[in-house]
Amino acid sequence: MKLHVPIRLRWSDIDAYAHVNNAAMLGLLEEVRIQAFWALPAGSADGTRQDGPAILDGRPGAKTLSLIAHQEIEYLRPIPYGRQPLDCEVWVARLGGASLDVHYEVFSPEGAEPRELTTRAASTLVLVDAATQQPRRITEAERAAWAPYLDAPVVFAHRKR
Amino acid sequence: MKLHVPIRLRWSDIDAYAHVNNAAMLGLLEEVRIQAFWALPAGSADGTRQDGPAILDGRPGAKTLSLIAHQEIEYLRPIPYGRQPLDCEVWVARLGGASLDVHYEVFSPEGAEPRELTTRAASTLVLVDAATQQPRRITEAERAAWAPYLDAPVVFAHRKR
Amino acid sequence: MKLHVPIRLRWSDIDAYAHVNNAAMLGLLEEVRIQAFWALPAGSADGTRQDGPAILDGRPGAKTLSLIAHQEIEYLRPIPYGRQPLDCEVWVARLGGASLDVHYEVFSPEGAEPRELTTRAASTLVLVDAATQQPRRITEAERAAWAPYLDAPVVFAHRKR
Amino acid sequence: MKLHVPIRLRWSDIDAYAHVNNAAMLGLLEEVRIQAFWALPAGSADGTRQDGPAILDGRPGAKTLSLIAHQEIEYLRPIPYGRQPLDCEVWVARLGGASLDVHYEVFSPEGAEPRELTTRAASTLVLVDAATQQPRRITEAERAAWAPYLDAPVVFAHRKR
Repeated sequence: MKLHVPIRLRWSDIDAYAHVNNAAMLGLLEEVRIQAFWALPAGSADGTRQDGPAILDGRPGAKTLSLIAHQEIEYLRPIPYGRQPLDCEVWVARLGGASLDVHYEVFSPEGAEPRELTTRAASTLVLVDAATQQPRRITEAERAAWAPYLDAPVVFAHRKR
Repeated sequence: MKLHVPIRLRWSDIDAYAHVNNAAMLGLLEEVRIQAFWALPAGSADGTRQDGPAILDGRPGAKTLSLIAHQEIEYLRPIPYGRQPLDCEVWVARLGGASLDVHYEVFSPEGAEPRELTTRAASTLVLVDAATQQPRRITEAERAAWAPYLDAPVVFAHRKR
Repeated sequence: MKLHVPIRLRWSDIDAYAHVNNAAMLGLLEEVRIQAFWALPAGSADGTRQDGPAILDGRPGAKTLSLIAHQEIEYLRPIPYGRQPLDCEVWVARLGGASLDVHYEVFSPEGAEPRELTTRAASTLVLVDAATQQPRRITEAERAAWAPYLDAPVVFAHRKR
Repeated sequence: MKLHVPIRLRWSDIDAYAHVNNAAMLGLLEEVRIQAFWALPAGSADGTRQDGPAILDGRPGAKTLSLIAHQEIEYLRPIPYGRQPLDCEVWVARLGGASLDVHYEVFSPEGAEPRELTTRAASTLVLVDAATQQPRRITEAERAAWAPYLDAPVVFAHRKR
């Protein structure tokens, strides 16, 4: 199952070519990941609805850090500035021992015709124990929470090799 | 009348002190200004509701640029990361010949108790003709559109002098 | 006495108007402040020459945080992208009990003719004890180190009141 | 032959984990690419020395845009804040018809012991005619200028497939 997370652009994401900057897109996908998969404290003043399984507490001070080990991103068409949020699909493509792969496809804003795929991406995250700074295994609770969002890996078209 | 515009934080707004970075806040206020006062083409695919008067077309390629001449910002308390959008009040504090002052007060997220003021700010914008690169006068239509959002200037507490 | 600190632009500082973004400039001045006034551990692998008095350790984990209380910035002319670093003058305009004012004037790159002033700015910093999160007084050692860099405050031309 | 380009960190590159943010690194590599391979107008006021072949004019208004089609990046170890620039090796791993691959390896600052590899990355750039917005072939002059910087592709260790 894939989650849909809206990506709201900022003016500062746009570079002098008048399109979303290539590095800014990676920051946007970081936001998607946080919105989809990070837990927030129950009963906090910050009572936003959880869009996803949100079992991972990745905030500063958390016991587990999620470090990025590898990322791949494919830019299929330039994205202009717009207020309507882009429609990002995000899912888990692999659940390993201490790491997982999060994959993304970013589409034109919901409702825009035709629906166009603009970006494909993949991130490998490693769970690291904040105290020991060593990788730690994915727990059974995490595995159960993420399992419904497992889906087939994205296929990169332009990969050279 | 003051507009309320939500400010959604990003992880990248947070610096190594675990608070919203001082320069990032100015970028956030830029987003507020755009959301409140920039026009979007009628009938565009980007059919977001207009929150404010939105008479100014500040996008690349527009006939008028709105350049920032002066900004002042007061940081009253550090802002931690949260998913719930901050509640920003924004209004026009002065309508001059070719320039206007936009003022802001950023509060804790809507519904959070107590409601705390975190930031005060003021921006002076100059309308510049894109072709001549010279300041141009505010039109009567613009003046009429902005007039309802005129309100008293923000008062800075820590101003030295 | 004023320090001269070079400001190297990045492509990401440039927005869709093809000039240095107004909020990005505040980030650049943050870099100037760090380069001018932050201490680095003696004998560290990071053996960069100190440009200024550098008595303040503002890094994460330091005993004192320097929080920004107030900033003011005046944009006199748009700054295009260029590789040659801008020439920034920076100095201390006021040494208070627990706070100080750092002022800046950003000029066109060194050697460029004519030398043009592009930006004026002022930041008020409060020294905060990291453990108690309360303001703490400037020490005599800090005062002595900063004293040579005391100079007259910047004069803002466009200040509205 | 590989070029060495220094990467100067900014405070804003550091996130709440106190390390260089994963998306920020992609922005840093963009700077490396610009510094290594972008041309500047001869005799401009901006008389910086050219570090690389610099035959490509990628600035706004240029006849050719260099769009990013694909990027891959591997993060081997977290990078803390430091003033000493990171030492980045950058080279051309492939010269195609209308596209080229730029590869990077980012090391600890020059002179630091031991010299550690922190990041590997690869970008595929497509040359696009600004007027027609269509890909255009690499010219013979460009090919000749880039040829000396051709070197073997980076090898990613963690690539999942």
